Amino acid sequence: MNRRTTRIHSIAILSALTALSGAASAQSSLNVFGVMDAAVRRTNTDGVGHVLSMASGSYTSSRYGFRGKEDLGNGLSASFWLESFLSTDTGLASPEGFQRRSTLSLSHAQWGELRMGRDFTPTHQNWSRFDPFNYVGIGSVQLFSLSAAGNTPVTAAFGSNSNSIQRSSNGVQYILPRNSWGVEGSFTKAFGESKVSANDQHDSIGGRLGINLGPVFVSAASYTTHDDKTISDFKDRAVAASWDAGVVKLSAGLRRFEYKDAKQNNYLIAAIVPFGAHEVKFSFNRAKMGGTAGTTSIDGDSADQLALGYVYHLSKRTVAYATAATMRDKGNARFVVPGSPAGKAGAKSQGFEFGVNHEF
Amino acid sequence: MNRRTTRIHSIAILSALTALSGAASAQSSLNVFGVMDAAVRRTNTDGVGHVLSMASGSYTSSRYGFRGKEDLGNGLSASFWLESFLSTDTGLASPEGFQRRSTLSLSHAQWGELRMGRDFTPTHQNWSRFDPFNYVGIGSVQLFSLSAAGNTPVTAAFGSNSNSIQRSSNGVQYILPRNSWGVEGSFTKAFGESKVSANDQHDSIGGRLGINLGPVFVSAASYTTHDDKTISDFKDRAVAASWDAGVVKLSAGLRRFEYKDAKQNNYLIAAIVPFGAHEVKFSFNRAKMGGTAGTTSIDGDSADQLALGYVYHLSKRTVAYATAATMRDKGNARFVVPGSPAGKAGAKSQGFEFGVNHEF
Amino acid sequence: MNRRTTRIHSIAILSALTALSGAASAQSSLNVFGVMDAAVRRTNTDGVGHVLSMASGSYTSSRYGFRGKEDLGNGLSASFWLESFLSTDTGLASPEGFQRRSTLSLSHAQWGELRMGRDFTPTHQNWSRFDPFNYVGIGSVQLFSLSAAGNTPVTAAFGSNSNSIQRSSNGVQYILPRNSWGVEGSFTKAFGESKVSANDQHDSIGGRLGINLGPVFVSAASYTTHDDKTISDFKDRAVAASWDAGVVKLSAGLRRFEYKDAKQNNYLIAAIVPFGAHEVKFSFNRAKMGGTAGTTSIDGDSADQLALGYVYHLSKRTVAYATAATMRDKGNARFVVPGSPAGKAGAKSQGFEFGVNHEF
Repeated sequence: MNRRTTRIHSIAILSALTALSGAASAQSSLNVFGVMDAAVRRTNTDGVGHVLSMASGSYTSSRYGFRGKEDLGNGLSASFWLESFLSTDTGLASPEGFQRRSTLSLSHAQWGELRMGRDFTPTHQNWSRFDPFNYVGIGSVQLFSLSAAGNTPVTAAFGSNSNSIQRSSNGVQYILPRNSWGVEGSFTKAFGESKVSANDQHDSIGGRLGINLGPVFVSAASYTTHDDKTISDFKDRAVAASWDAGVVKLSAGLRRFEYKDAKQNNYLIAAIVPFGAHEVKFSFNRAKMGGTAGTTSIDGDSADQLALGYVYHLSKRTVAYATAATMRDKGNARFVVPGSPAGKAGAKSQGFEFGVNHEF
Repeated sequence: MNRRTTRIHSIAILSALTALSGAASAQSSLNVFGVMDAAVRRTNTDGVGHVLSMASGSYTSSRYGFRGKEDLGNGLSASFWLESFLSTDTGLASPEGFQRRSTLSLSHAQWGELRMGRDFTPTHQNWSRFDPFNYVGIGSVQLFSLSAAGNTPVTAAFGSNSNSIQRSSNGVQYILPRNSWGVEGSFTKAFGESKVSANDQHDSIGGRLGINLGPVFVSAASYTTHDDKTISDFKDRAVAASWDAGVVKLSAGLRRFEYKDAKQNNYLIAAIVPFGAHEVKFSFNRAKMGGTAGTTSIDGDSADQLALGYVYHLSKRTVAYATAATMRDKGNARFVVPGSPAGKAGAKSQGFEFGVNHEF
Repeated sequence: MNRRTTRIHSIAILSALTALSGAASAQSSLNVFGVMDAAVRRTNTDGVGHVLSMASGSYTSSRYGFRGKEDLGNGLSASFWLESFLSTDTGLASPEGFQRRSTLSLSHAQWGELRMGRDFTPTHQNWSRFDPFNYVGIGSVQLFSLSAAGNTPVTAAFGSNSNSIQRSSNGVQYILPRNSWGVEGSFTKAFGESKVSANDQHDSIGGRLGINLGPVFVSAASYTTHDDKTISDFKDRAVAASWDAGVVKLSAGLRRFEYKDAKQNNYLIAAIVPFGAHEVKFSFNRAKMGGTAGTTSIDGDSADQLALGYVYHLSKRTVAYATAATMRDKGNARFVVPGSPAGKAGAKSQGFEFGVNHEF
């Protein structure tokens, strides 16, 4: 998403450098980059109340960071990426540090990339890219996979601690190089270190594999977390496909969490209709529990979310947007649209937000 | 204050970009900026003790940040500003994140600016710009408006929590465009969100209006905070004027806090005398309480502060400075010059500091 | 270490600026810089257990920061340096802020430098530069001087609070200018401020002095911390020498901590053998206690550490490295190689790590 703007900054530094040094033998870039996103949001949970608020990161997540690349010759390069959370509305960058991403890579054009540090999990990567709402804002299904969001496999495994749904620390990744077969993929091993589940330091292993078949893209991913001391096998798998038909881009996916006797299936059906500088987005998300989370039966707990969005591209880096969403719970599910007051079993919530998103 | 240096950084990136791309259709800038300020300070509270310390940000606040602007065409632009606290003496940047300012703006040359996020309150803007000591250092009157600084309207309303005196989070601001009448102004609405007073998330509303009449500038501002759960109407109003007579720049102002039965009037009279690279500054500040804060009568509580400063401009970005200040309390007031040991009722304190301030 | 890359970034900004402004009268630079370092590490403490982990900063510390310089004319310049901790493996930048270094300087070519803020202590500077493992990684002796690392003079003086072994806040430093006699040195006074030992705010005084005699460099340093309320004189002294014989660079040193009746001598003998892009490093470290720490006799407590390292320079900014180390405790010493499970008295620990280090 940040490709264009960061290239600008790179070019600036490279060009001046080249001008001075004649033919620069080793190319080097360093970029400061980020996203500022703010929206005015009104949400309501039936029978509980409403909240008028300013939200941060409803089109894409607000963030800032540094990244750079050094050409080492012979197709080899070293690169790094540091990316921090950010709340446009309050200025907070919590939790502290570069917890969105912190990676160091050695890459080769033919052999692929070795990447070390904190990064997205293979399953999250294979899920969020099919969501037209980028996993954020009131149209997102973040709450389906937050720790302590109710009786779910995620809560059963991780409680209120951080989980390994979106990101993993202490990871070694191997990423396939670009190739002519359209195949992409990666393999990740994250070290649990002390084997205590804190700060995403979970012992995890998994990977993803996808294939580009012209306008169709199909992919699958699996990621399993197992900490000797606290967590038995937590299984996270995702399969999804998209079809770019020109006038509309369709996508569909299934992500499944399993922990002991608890199961959760997340379904996604989505569409994006672009026309010139405009874009209309739609998504339907369903979470369906099954089995037992801890000692509580979660059979019959489920939630459906519908989201409709409109985007106007002011430039390649800046958009204005509006989103409306509604969430209906069944059984003892207590999910709400993001930012809405905490729900009660079987509640219905809805919200509306409009905002501006600016990449730098 | 940072205009000059940041323009340099912008130009660097722009020029190289333009050179490469031919005529760049959209202009873009990204700046890293900040202030490093350190001073050696000695303060003394009569009958309590003295402290020898290194202070940070006594000429202007130490800080660092990122800001940028994108030209969207037709007079429209998008811009952002992220600015963090910084302590030169210890390296601490607390509280974490960009809590000095975090804003995203859409601006139009004729229609003005829509700004979202965390920023100064209208009343603070209308107060600090008339203070020759920039609201910081031992010559400043920050303690007059800190939460929990004694029995004052601010403490009665906010207790030891953060207040909405200097900054507001979750704000939507409309700012008037530059115009030929010399009129400037803004309107701010900040969302309380959960209506619980934490992290400056107060429900506030207000604005400011000023007019430039040649060498004279007059302005007024009002800002009211009301959280259903914790805070009744806290009223903050400020009127001030300045006259630039060439050999001396004079300013005077009144800021009034009101909360239930408690009142506080802050008076400011100040002068700046520039001669070449030198500058002599003087300010007199008085805080005068009245009524009842909680159940305590604060009638007769007051404090007077006198400050004298000298500045030597080593360049446009770097100055050396020295400041001396004294504070006298009456009644049960316990204010001290910043950095001096906590006072006792009716105490007298004084201090001296000399330091260096460098903008980047 | 960062000289090369940061000069590149400076040049970029300077050159574009010069091109635009014609002959720039005042030169100005602003650099974003840092190090990303990640290693896979396996450590083992005999009779306790092993840990497989990802480590950050085993060749040089991971970090990021900002620094800049302004030429004020007549040999005078203003400069600043902000440098933050960073964990490549998790993205954490804790403790928050720029606690590796936060300084503001006025420098003169003939008169030397006045530096204010948080920086290395003179003794740490005089110790770490002789360590081929840069005081980090499993070959380092960091644990010999951490607070609360066992019964040592450091623990007796500082308990589990931060100490003044590596860095001091609130410091005023004077640093000698470059001169033709090969003499270098500095003097530091750090203010204790409230005289309570928190956040490195210790009342300290000391300096260092060294002389370059062709291939031989000899230096000595002393730093004493004394807080009225909590700490009597804690004495930290270091003498060391290095000899660059071309095929091998040898170094040796002694650092001595004293607090009341407790003494600790740290001995270092080290060698670096470079050949082309390769480098082999060796170090032997011994910590030997004596006297009484609190009420506990520490006579006979000691620890020996052996480290062997290999470095391959992929470029001037990027290296791959591998290190092996072993630690043997005697008496009641409980030191372990960094990252190994906490030891027991007289334990033996060892470890191996290989990683990548990239400067930007």
